[in-house]
Amino acid sequence: MAENYDCIIVGGGPAGLAAALYTARDRLKTLILEKFMPGGQISTTDRIENYPGFDRVGGIELVEKMQKQAAAFGAEIKTGAEVTALKKLNDASLEVACDKDKYFARAVILSPGSDYRKLGVPGEDKFRNAGAGVSYCGTCDAPFFKDKSVAAVGGGNTALEDTLHLCKHAAKVALIHRRDEFRATKVLQEELLAKANEPGSNLIIKYSTVATAIGGGDKVQSVKLKDLKTGREENYPCDGVFIFIGMVPNTGFLKDFVELNNAGYIKCDCAYLRTSVPGVFVAGDCRVGAAMQLATAVGDGVNAAMALKHYFRDPNWWHQPLADELKIKN
Amino acid sequence: MAENYDCIIVGGGPAGLAAALYTARDRLKTLILEKFMPGGQISTTDRIENYPGFDRVGGIELVEKMQKQAAAFGAEIKTGAEVTALKKLNDASLEVACDKDKYFARAVILSPGSDYRKLGVPGEDKFRNAGAGVSYCGTCDAPFFKDKSVAAVGGGNTALEDTLHLCKHAAKVALIHRRDEFRATKVLQEELLAKANEPGSNLIIKYSTVATAIGGGDKVQSVKLKDLKTGREENYPCDGVFIFIGMVPNTGFLKDFVELNNAGYIKCDCAYLRTSVPGVFVAGDCRVGAAMQLATAVGDGVNAAMALKHYFRDPNWWHQPLADELKIKN
Repeated sequence: MAENYDCIIVGGGPAGLAAALYTARDRLKTLILEKFMPGGQISTTDRIENYPGFDRVGGIELVEKMQKQAAAFGAEIKTGAEVTALKKLNDASLEVACDKDKYFARAVILSPGSDYRKLGVPGEDKFRNAGAGVSYCGTCDAPFFKDKSVAAVGGGNTALEDTLHLCKHAAKVALIHRRDEFRATKVLQEELLAKANEPGSNLIIKYSTVATAIGGGDKVQSVKLKDLKTGREENYPCDGVFIFIGMVPNTGFLKDFVELNNAGYIKCDCAYLRTSVPGVFVAGDCRVGAAMQLATAVGDGVNAAMALKHYFRDPNWWHQPLADELKIKN
Repeated sequence: MAENYDCIIVGGGPAGLAAALYTARDRLKTLILEKFMPGGQISTTDRIENYPGFDRVGGIELVEKMQKQAAAFGAEIKTGAEVTALKKLNDASLEVACDKDKYFARAVILSPGSDYRKLGVPGEDKFRNAGAGVSYCGTCDAPFFKDKSVAAVGGGNTALEDTLHLCKHAAKVALIHRRDEFRATKVLQEELLAKANEPGSNLIIKYSTVATAIGGGDKVQSVKLKDLKTGREENYPCDGVFIFIGMVPNTGFLKDFVELNNAGYIKCDCAYLRTSVPGVFVAGDCRVGAAMQLATAVGDGVNAAMALKHYFRDPNWWHQPLADELKIKN
């Protein structure tokens, strides 16, 4: 099987869907290859209030809108299509392989997003794989812990958002954070503290504490905690552990194809999102310097799709250095 | 009068409103100074279908949503507030003057947008100022030309969009374009040609033609056209002339304050949107390298607001050069 496209987009999250809307609207034959279902990480967020234009929207709802919008202009979306390899061909076009299926394109936009970071403690994989009490997604799994006790680990925006979400379902929630202050946005910190300070609150916060192991039989029964200031350890009884400690870029399959930085993010020029391979752009949370916000991923997708037109008009444009006025010295 | 803010945003278009949503949500005291009414150029667009998440939305409607969203988190918006001067003070803070009113901030985000480009022909200013038949905004003024004859000038996206809009109102529309092909997106070109080719269409297209003067008495009565291939001139009778030939950055008041390029766009580093003045960021259509799209302006606003946190955490961050991985050589 071989199919030719103008533009193949690897990853159907907000960055990829925004790029597809633009390329398809420009009447470029566009294919999105998505490993799972469209949406990426944003599908796991049930309350978005910082995407300009929507005062409050669910991740799944927003992604569905973006998907329909791109499809309405002719973008094709293949789900369950995991890209396994990319190759630059002699004629400057690109080959994109999903195992045995091969697709060809004049340009590629990489938007594979980022994935959950693991805690890396004993019990984590065992209970996660068994669906037995370890989760990375409060939105998805909180309802399963109705009237139960859960521990959440982390201190960023997602950690606080999802912990607040857990409080709506679980009987008891303990937020475990290794530092003595949160890095999450202040508005979320305030909301969290207000919740913890409610009379009879079901939320407690354990600062300067790390989770070192997850224990239980068939299901999670406890998490081992260590207080970093006193050295004291305890087995905290709980039915579930939610791990909210950030993301890793989903770029393992790209390491022999484009240049990545040490953390695995795709290197690019930040003006036009060109990678180290001519004809291959990048957009979204998988790139160096990404602000990791929905609106910036969407902006990236549109920027890449606009830049792609420069490349189609003149392939030598790819090698133009950034204008000095885009590298201002301060 | 003197008021202190964490962040002052100059210009209340989509870039400024997106920035304000983020800074206000971060509990930073935020003021938007807007010369006219919030919205910027996008308010004049009645049909937006390329902002991801909205399959079709009016510019005014979308801007109202963005404005309410930012205000809900505490952003203050002053309308009719034209910034006349900015100054960096000795304590590294910034003074922003609207004539006699002065405001002070720890950081500024410049998002003044861009403005309509003028044709520069006899009659243009006279009839525009009198509201007597010269317009730059199809959306705003098309209804005034019901059952009349109008000429439109231009060949970009806005020109084609607004010409199609004019066709819904006017009895006859002539699109005047100086080249023999359009630079607008193909989907719009196709829509335009389909319209022109309808039986009994009210749209004609004059390629390789320029408008050299606008004539009339109290009101527009004709536009003088010159065919660039034959040299032939004609007085084309019409009741209105719509000029859709692009934008100029609204940065005149900034020329002694931040570095601008030759076209008047604000120079910046494209990763963090830092300008030549520490503490002053830029976002949207007024900056060098802007893709001039709604979604990219919004992305810029969010990027600037995220970068601002780096600056507040450590003012020396301002002088950090871009990492090599953001300046990839191709």
